[in-house]
Amino acid sequence: MDAVFDRHQPTLAAALKAARERGYWSAYPEIPSGKIYGETAKGDGLASYNARLGKPFALSGHPGTVEVGAEVSPFGGALGIIYPAADVDTLIAASQAAAPAWAGASVETRVGLCIEVLTRLNRMSFEIANAVMHTTGQAFAMAFQAGGPHTQDRGLEAVAYAYAEMTRTPGQAIWTKPQGKGDPIVLEKHWRIVPRGISLVIGCQTFPTWNSYPGLFASLATGNPIIVKPHPGAILPLAITVSVIREVLAEQGFDPNIVLLAADASGAEITRDLVKNEAVSIVDYTGSNSFGEWVRRNAGEAQVYTEEAGVNSIVVAATDDFAGMCANIAFSLSLYSGQMCTAPQNIFIPRSGIETDQGHKSFDEVARGIAAAIDELLADPARSVGVCGAIANPATLARIDEARSLGRIVRDSAPVTTGDARTATPLVLAVDTDKTDAHEEERFGPIAFMVAVADAATGIEKAASLARRKGAITAALYDNDERRIDAAIAAFTKAGVNLSINLTGGIFVNQSAAFSDFHVTGANPAGNASLTDAAFVSNRFRIVMWRRPKAA
Amino acid sequence: MDAVFDRHQPTLAAALKAARERGYWSAYPEIPSGKIYGETAKGDGLASYNARLGKPFALSGHPGTVEVGAEVSPFGGALGIIYPAADVDTLIAASQAAAPAWAGASVETRVGLCIEVLTRLNRMSFEIANAVMHTTGQAFAMAFQAGGPHTQDRGLEAVAYAYAEMTRTPGQAIWTKPQGKGDPIVLEKHWRIVPRGISLVIGCQTFPTWNSYPGLFASLATGNPIIVKPHPGAILPLAITVSVIREVLAEQGFDPNIVLLAADASGAEITRDLVKNEAVSIVDYTGSNSFGEWVRRNAGEAQVYTEEAGVNSIVVAATDDFAGMCANIAFSLSLYSGQMCTAPQNIFIPRSGIETDQGHKSFDEVARGIAAAIDELLADPARSVGVCGAIANPATLARIDEARSLGRIVRDSAPVTTGDARTATPLVLAVDTDKTDAHEEERFGPIAFMVAVADAATGIEKAASLARRKGAITAALYDNDERRIDAAIAAFTKAGVNLSINLTGGIFVNQSAAFSDFHVTGANPAGNASLTDAAFVSNRFRIVMWRRPKAA
Repeated sequence: MDAVFDRHQPTLAAALKAARERGYWSAYPEIPSGKIYGETAKGDGLASYNARLGKPFALSGHPGTVEVGAEVSPFGGALGIIYPAADVDTLIAASQAAAPAWAGASVETRVGLCIEVLTRLNRMSFEIANAVMHTTGQAFAMAFQAGGPHTQDRGLEAVAYAYAEMTRTPGQAIWTKPQGKGDPIVLEKHWRIVPRGISLVIGCQTFPTWNSYPGLFASLATGNPIIVKPHPGAILPLAITVSVIREVLAEQGFDPNIVLLAADASGAEITRDLVKNEAVSIVDYTGSNSFGEWVRRNAGEAQVYTEEAGVNSIVVAATDDFAGMCANIAFSLSLYSGQMCTAPQNIFIPRSGIETDQGHKSFDEVARGIAAAIDELLADPARSVGVCGAIANPATLARIDEARSLGRIVRDSAPVTTGDARTATPLVLAVDTDKTDAHEEERFGPIAFMVAVADAATGIEKAASLARRKGAITAALYDNDERRIDAAIAAFTKAGVNLSINLTGGIFVNQSAAFSDFHVTGANPAGNASLTDAAFVSNRFRIVMWRRPKAA
Repeated sequence: MDAVFDRHQPTLAAALKAARERGYWSAYPEIPSGKIYGETAKGDGLASYNARLGKPFALSGHPGTVEVGAEVSPFGGALGIIYPAADVDTLIAASQAAAPAWAGASVETRVGLCIEVLTRLNRMSFEIANAVMHTTGQAFAMAFQAGGPHTQDRGLEAVAYAYAEMTRTPGQAIWTKPQGKGDPIVLEKHWRIVPRGISLVIGCQTFPTWNSYPGLFASLATGNPIIVKPHPGAILPLAITVSVIREVLAEQGFDPNIVLLAADASGAEITRDLVKNEAVSIVDYTGSNSFGEWVRRNAGEAQVYTEEAGVNSIVVAATDDFAGMCANIAFSLSLYSGQMCTAPQNIFIPRSGIETDQGHKSFDEVARGIAAAIDELLADPARSVGVCGAIANPATLARIDEARSLGRIVRDSAPVTTGDARTATPLVLAVDTDKTDAHEEERFGPIAFMVAVADAATGIEKAASLARRKGAITAALYDNDERRIDAAIAAFTKAGVNLSINLTGGIFVNQSAAFSDFHVTGANPAGNASLTDAAFVSNRFRIVMWRRPKAA
C-alpha cells in the first residue's frame, strides 16, 4: 500500500517545504476553471449534486438507519436528503472496533491514504461547491474556493504537519553507552506511534469543510478513528467527505468505520453525549464561545481544540489610498454577508478624522466613504449576490433588526435579491466609545460599527483590549506612521491576534492562506488552537518505546 | 547578549542532533570524579552545602519575608534553612511585572541564558548532590547523578526541543500570490513567539530537580515567567536552582523575578491557590494521582503537564541468564528503596515456574532467587546504604508494615543501618492472582510482589491491563520466545508503557536517559505528558503574525 504514499510523496514534500518556508503555495487550484478541472466539470458537479437531492445518502456499511436530515438551502428549497443516524453507543462501538487496524497501519500508509482522499475530493470540488453553497449560503465562487481547494489545502497542511511530527523521532536507534575500559552497554530501541483514541470533529454551519478538515485529517493521519458530527443544517458537505474517505479506506482493505458520520437532527443533537463519552479522546470544535466553553469543561481527559468566536476590529489611523482602503473594507464587510469568523465588525476611527491622500477626512466622511464603497460594490444585483451570498441562519436576520437601534444608521441593511434566498447586505452603524459599548459584543452577520475614538492610539488600545477580553481572529490597521504601526504590532501581538496592515486591492483581512497564515492563534478567547501548528498535531498521538540489549 | 547563545551554540547543536537520532549522548558527565569536576570539587561542594545549613537562604530581591523551612534529612538532622515566602497574590504580581521583558527577549537570548544556567548548575553538581541527598534520602552517588548531571541533561533536552519548536516557523517570509496576467500580490509576513503566561512548576520530594527541570526550562526558554513550588520537604535543591537562574537573569539585565520560589510549609501549602489562580497559564506537576487529578480538574484554562504514578510490572517468562536476571531485578527493587516512579512493584511469574539456563525453576525458586540476589546486593552495610539510601517520607515505613500482611513474606524488610537514618530494604511478598489483587494498588516504596499467574501470556496480559487501568511508567519482560516477545511488545505498546526486554548487567528498567528515552508516555494514567517530546513544549507559546504589502 506504500505505492499510494509513493505516488503522493512529491505533493507531501512540497507541502512540508511550503509549511517550513511559509511563502505562497497551494496544492489544489482555486480557480473554478474547465481548463484545470475538465471542460465538463462544472456541469458534472452540478449534476452530481442534483442527483443527491431528495433521497437517502448512501454510506455503505455505515451503522444506523436512515432517519435524519432536514437541510434547507439559504438560497431556497429543501435538499430532501436523509442520512444514516445511529445512537452514540453504536457509533462509539463501531469506532472502537475499527480502531486497532488503523492504529497498526504504518505512517506512510495513513498519510498516503489521506492525500489520496484529498486528491479525490479535489476532483469533486464542483459538486462539493454546490453542497457547501446550498447548506451555508455561500455564493458559488466562494463555496468553490473556501469549501473546495482552500479546504483541501488546509487538510493537506494538517497531514504534512502530522507526518513531520510522526517522523521526527526515528523508528529505531542503537544506544551505545561507554563504560570506561569495559564493554559499552548497547541497546536497540524502537519507538512506535500510538494514537490517542476516538477523535470527534464537530462541524459548524458556515464553513462545514474548511473548519473541519484540519482536525479531521490531523487525527486521521495520526491513526485515530474519527466521528464527524456535522451541524444539522450543513450535513451534506461532510457526508460527501466521509463517503470519499470510507471509499478509499475500503479500497485499501480497512474497515470504513474508521470514519463515521454522526448526523443528527436540530433540537435532538447528540453532540453533548459524544463530548462526554469517555471513549472520546480528542475533540475538534468550531462554533460559539458559549458551547465552546461547555465543550472545554465537559470533555474530561480528551484533548480539545477549539475555534470559537471573537470581535474583529480594524483601526483606521491614516491612509495614502483612501479609495483603496474604503473598497477593501467594503469587500471585507460584504463578503458572505459578514458570516466569516475572520470578518471585521468594528472600525475604530478617530473622532476628529484622519489624514488621507484626498486630504483630511472627518469621522463621518470616513464612515460614509466605506458605506459608499459597499453601495458601489453591491450596485449590480448579480455581483451583489455573488459577493454576499445568503444568510445561513434566520437568527442572523433577527440580529440585524435588533442591531438597528444600537447606533446611528450610516447604511441600512437590505435584501440582496427578491427571490427565495434569505439575504442581507451590511448594516453600518456609527457609535462613540464614550457613549456605548454595544460594539463590544460579537454580532455575527452583516453588522458593522464605525466606532469613534479619541485618537488612533486609543483605537489601537481599545481594539487590542477587546481582542484580549472577548477574543479576535483578525485585526487590521490603516496607518502611515511607522512608530504607531510598531506600537500596534506590539499591542495586537500581545493580544494574540494576527494583524493585517494597509491592505488594498485583491487581498483582504478575512483571508487566511494555508501553508502561510496560521488561522486563529490560540492566544485569546477566540480559540485555544491554531490551524495548523505543531501543537495542533503533536498531542494527537503518543510515542511508546521498547528496548533490549542488541544481539552481538 | 547573543554572545552567550553563540558560546553555547555547539552544545545546543549537539543536543538537537542527539534528540533527533536518540542514540547515547550526554552534555554533563555523570561520574562524580575530581578529574572532571576539579580535584577539590567534592569537598568544595560539601562545604558549600554545609555553609547553607542553619540560616536563611539568600535570594536577593525575592518578594516575601524569611519565614518557612523545616527540612529534615532522611539520613538524620534538620537542615535548619529558612526561605523567603510570599503569599500567592504577591508572587503572581511579581511574576506578571517581570514577564513582559522576558517575553520580548529573542529566542537566542532566552535559549543562551538557559544553557548558561545549566552550565553553572553543572559546576555545582557536588553541592546539589548533597542538597538532593539530604532532602530526598537518595544515597550520595545517586543524588549526584540523578540530581545533578542527569537532571541537567533533561533540562538541556527541554531547551533543545523548545528551540526547535520556536524556530521551525521563520521570523518572516515573502508571500507572492500570482494573479494570472496581472501583477502578483506580494505581502511581507512576520511571526512572533508569544509566551502563554505564568508557568507553575510543582516539584515532588523524591526527585525535586529531575522531575522539575524539563517543565521549568521548557517554559523559561519559551518566554514564560516561572513560579517554582517545591515540596516542603525538598526545597533546597530547587532554591539553589532558582538562585542560579536569578543570578544569571540579573547579570544579563533581566528582572530576576522572572523565576520565583514559592516555598511553603507542610500543612499550609499554597499549591491549590496557585493552581486555581487565573493568571497561571501552564502547570507542570509531579506527584500522586489523587492530587494530579485535582490539578487537572482545577487548573481552568491552564495547560497541564503531569507525571503522576502507576504500578510498574516485570513479567518473567524465561531467561537464559537466571543469575543475571535475578541480580538485575534485585538492583531495580533496591535502588533508592523502590522510591522511583520507574521502580517495578510486581513481578509476574508463571505458577508452574519458568525455563532457564539453570534448568526449570519453580515459582518459589524464582521468587527466592530474586530475594537471594537482594540479600547478596545488600550484604555489605556500606554498599547497602549506597544502594538503598534512606526513606524520604515516614509514611513509607508505615506502608511497609501494613504490606506485610498482604501476602506470604519471601524476604522481609529491615533497616539498612542502625544510625539516625530512616532506611528499609525491600519487602518481597508472594501472592497469587487467583486469590488477591493487593498488588494492583500502587504501594510506593520498597514493597515488591511476586505474583503467580497461570502462564507467561497471562502475566503479560495482566501487567498490560494494569498499566492501562492504573498507569505504569515502566514494564520489563524476561523471555526468549520471540513470538511471545512480539505479543508483549504489542500489548505494552497498546497500554502506553515503555518496555525493557532481557536487561542484565549494568542497565536497569528504572533508568531513563535524556535524549534517548522518553520518560512517561502520556498514554496511560501514570501521566498526561512525556519528557520531552514536541507536545511537551509546542503549546507553551503561541505564534502571532503581522503582514503588510511589501514595499516596491
